[in-house]
Amino acid sequence: MTVFGDSPARNLVCRGCGTKYPLAAQHACYECFGPLEVGYDADALARVTREQIAAGPKSIWRYAGLLPVGADASARVTLDPGFTPLVRADGLAAAIGVRGPLYVKDDSANPTHSFKDRVVSVALTAARALGFQRYACASTGNLANSVAAHAARAGVPSMVFIPSDLEPGKVVMTAVYDGDLVAVEGSYDDVNRLCSELTETDEFEKTAFVNVNIRPYYAEGSKTLGYEVAEQLGWRIPEQVVIPMASGELLTKVDKAFQELIEAGLVEPPANGWKVFGAQSAGCNPIATALHKGTDEIVPVKPTGIAKSLNIGDPAAGLYALEAVRRSGGWMDYADDGEIVDAIRLLARTTGIFAETAGGTTTAVLRKLVASGKLDPDAETVVFNTGDGLKTIDAVSGLVGPTYRVRPSLKAVREAGLID
Amino acid sequence: MTVFGDSPARNLVCRGCGTKYPLAAQHACYECFGPLEVGYDADALARVTREQIAAGPKSIWRYAGLLPVGADASARVTLDPGFTPLVRADGLAAAIGVRGPLYVKDDSANPTHSFKDRVVSVALTAARALGFQRYACASTGNLANSVAAHAARAGVPSMVFIPSDLEPGKVVMTAVYDGDLVAVEGSYDDVNRLCSELTETDEFEKTAFVNVNIRPYYAEGSKTLGYEVAEQLGWRIPEQVVIPMASGELLTKVDKAFQELIEAGLVEPPANGWKVFGAQSAGCNPIATALHKGTDEIVPVKPTGIAKSLNIGDPAAGLYALEAVRRSGGWMDYADDGEIVDAIRLLARTTGIFAETAGGTTTAVLRKLVASGKLDPDAETVVFNTGDGLKTIDAVSGLVGPTYRVRPSLKAVREAGLID
Repeated sequence: MTVFGDSPARNLVCRGCGTKYPLAAQHACYECFGPLEVGYDADALARVTREQIAAGPKSIWRYAGLLPVGADASARVTLDPGFTPLVRADGLAAAIGVRGPLYVKDDSANPTHSFKDRVVSVALTAARALGFQRYACASTGNLANSVAAHAARAGVPSMVFIPSDLEPGKVVMTAVYDGDLVAVEGSYDDVNRLCSELTETDEFEKTAFVNVNIRPYYAEGSKTLGYEVAEQLGWRIPEQVVIPMASGELLTKVDKAFQELIEAGLVEPPANGWKVFGAQSAGCNPIATALHKGTDEIVPVKPTGIAKSLNIGDPAAGLYALEAVRRSGGWMDYADDGEIVDAIRLLARTTGIFAETAGGTTTAVLRKLVASGKLDPDAETVVFNTGDGLKTIDAVSGLVGPTYRVRPSLKAVREAGLID
Repeated sequence: MTVFGDSPARNLVCRGCGTKYPLAAQHACYECFGPLEVGYDADALARVTREQIAAGPKSIWRYAGLLPVGADASARVTLDPGFTPLVRADGLAAAIGVRGPLYVKDDSANPTHSFKDRVVSVALTAARALGFQRYACASTGNLANSVAAHAARAGVPSMVFIPSDLEPGKVVMTAVYDGDLVAVEGSYDDVNRLCSELTETDEFEKTAFVNVNIRPYYAEGSKTLGYEVAEQLGWRIPEQVVIPMASGELLTKVDKAFQELIEAGLVEPPANGWKVFGAQSAGCNPIATALHKGTDEIVPVKPTGIAKSLNIGDPAAGLYALEAVRRSGGWMDYADDGEIVDAIRLLARTTGIFAETAGGTTTAVLRKLVASGKLDPDAETVVFNTGDGLKTIDAVSGLVGPTYRVRPSLKAVREAGLID
């Protein structure tokens, strides 16, 4: 038994030097300052079966046996996110020249309409077990929505930190849950630094910043996206995945999920492996730029552009994202604001999915990867939509609208040309 | 076999005079002009088992055996909505003085974030079988979003008619799917009349208006909300349900769903029945007003107020809603704009659910029904949230926002009083 009950997690492991630590509220290595990651008992993971998972709830908690927390349903802090649709996208495929099966993993279907509900549910369930009494985060918007909503349902105070220039929809959807909301006059990277400093203060000793002081647990929640895709494909890993990058962590965790599924014996290792592709915006492309230059040096940028949820100029997991993409034989690219908006509209009219700017970015990059030949148009591909178009509605609101405007009479409809 | 394949539906039945018609694209009785409703083979319904349903998909289609269409998955026009969360709302209960179990059925979790995906999936699946080649509707917004998205995924042209003064979010979320969108300078009732007239024109002969010329199929989709609530409670009908009313049809269909579950032997009839409560806004309360006056005469109104998705001044199913509420021993009430906004915020901070104005209306009316003693605070109650707060964000955007604004430094945070 661990602090998290009957969990398969055993320790925290430094991604830099491999030093191990007990499961606690720690996110950096005392030896080398490298980031920590949850380590598991391989035997415990190997005991998980497809049947156990299939018998579980239609949420991320069906994979509790592969997560650090959540085996005890009564101890969860959660909106029960996950098991979102994997949508076959033949219309999109035809439009961009993909001939193999193409799917959109649509995480706008989560309770607060982004993939962040996954990581927040895992992080806050850990936070409760670790004794934290207030829930917090540094956020580009979606995380703010999710932390505030989770805290409201759990009846726990929250304090969310955001850059002051976020999209109005994301600000309102955080504030409506009635926790504290701190608008910081700076970039996300400024907000993140401030939150790191606050975790060292007495006033924030009992405050769990989901993506700072309990980040190792938080990050594990993203694995569920990979688990779900594999299960929804009939326990199979797709040949290619295209994933948006902010910190880069989502990409690395989907990749890790595929590896764990193989190690746990839940899927067969694909003969040709799988390729991981990363998407950034032109306004914030430090990881893709490093890949294009063939370097490990990720030069921080000052982000610009409409894909605000991806605007992390100093990406914490950028190096690991580079590693995963290089190891798998994938690639990264970036799209400018015009391409992002076009892709939001393309995705909507071909699939019925209205994505936020991050999903537009990923779709735009998919299109570019096909055009440049980096992505195999005949292979099976899954593209990830991580958020909802209603949250970034200003991206398209000036471009789309009524195609006709009429008075309520047949005469007016006739004059508009709708009938003879 | 019917036009809908192996469906339990057998005919269309006039709700006024009982005349029966074959399953076709017909919505009014040739004898008395009354509305038609789908009639089923009672034996076919009785053959449906809990086990069959439990083995089905986690969507409305698990109830295909109780619906007119959808048994053949390959013939569906659908975003696979349904099986949305039933959220235990202890915090809300405590805040408004409810002592019995209180649940929110949260239909903002549907693909286009309202309950309309249910009715559209059933209607358009019928429309395809009936040979229609374009999908349309008269809408107060949510229906517009859903029809446009369904058509986009199916690759079928759409033409959606809306009042020109709808909330911007709902307009953009319809237009982004790239079908035709007709803004009509008038009320929803004007739009609806216009669409009825258009169904008689040559140009619209092959156009399915989901809530006009194929309305009987459309309306059946709402039954799935009742089925789900009963299944999620462990195959039990709750003692009290509180349901928003626009046309009044949602209320009557949830009530019908409970009756059918009993007739099909899927639930035990509750010893004391169940009570149905209806919610309107003060700006559009013709059904509740008729109930309060003790009359069957529903006097049409010109709707006002922020609950635009409920703004149907001449409600088609108002009389049937009155009947259901009276028969069950329930009640109706209405809430003004201030009460609606307060209730949106109350629901958000106690449950983590961000509802649109319709959900605020229903929550506000729940609160009033408790205060007035019409609703039993010790009984089990389910309140329906039918849509998403992001769609009507202006209702709260002037009222909520950041609680602090700081520069990104510990000094600034100290001056703001967050730390010593």
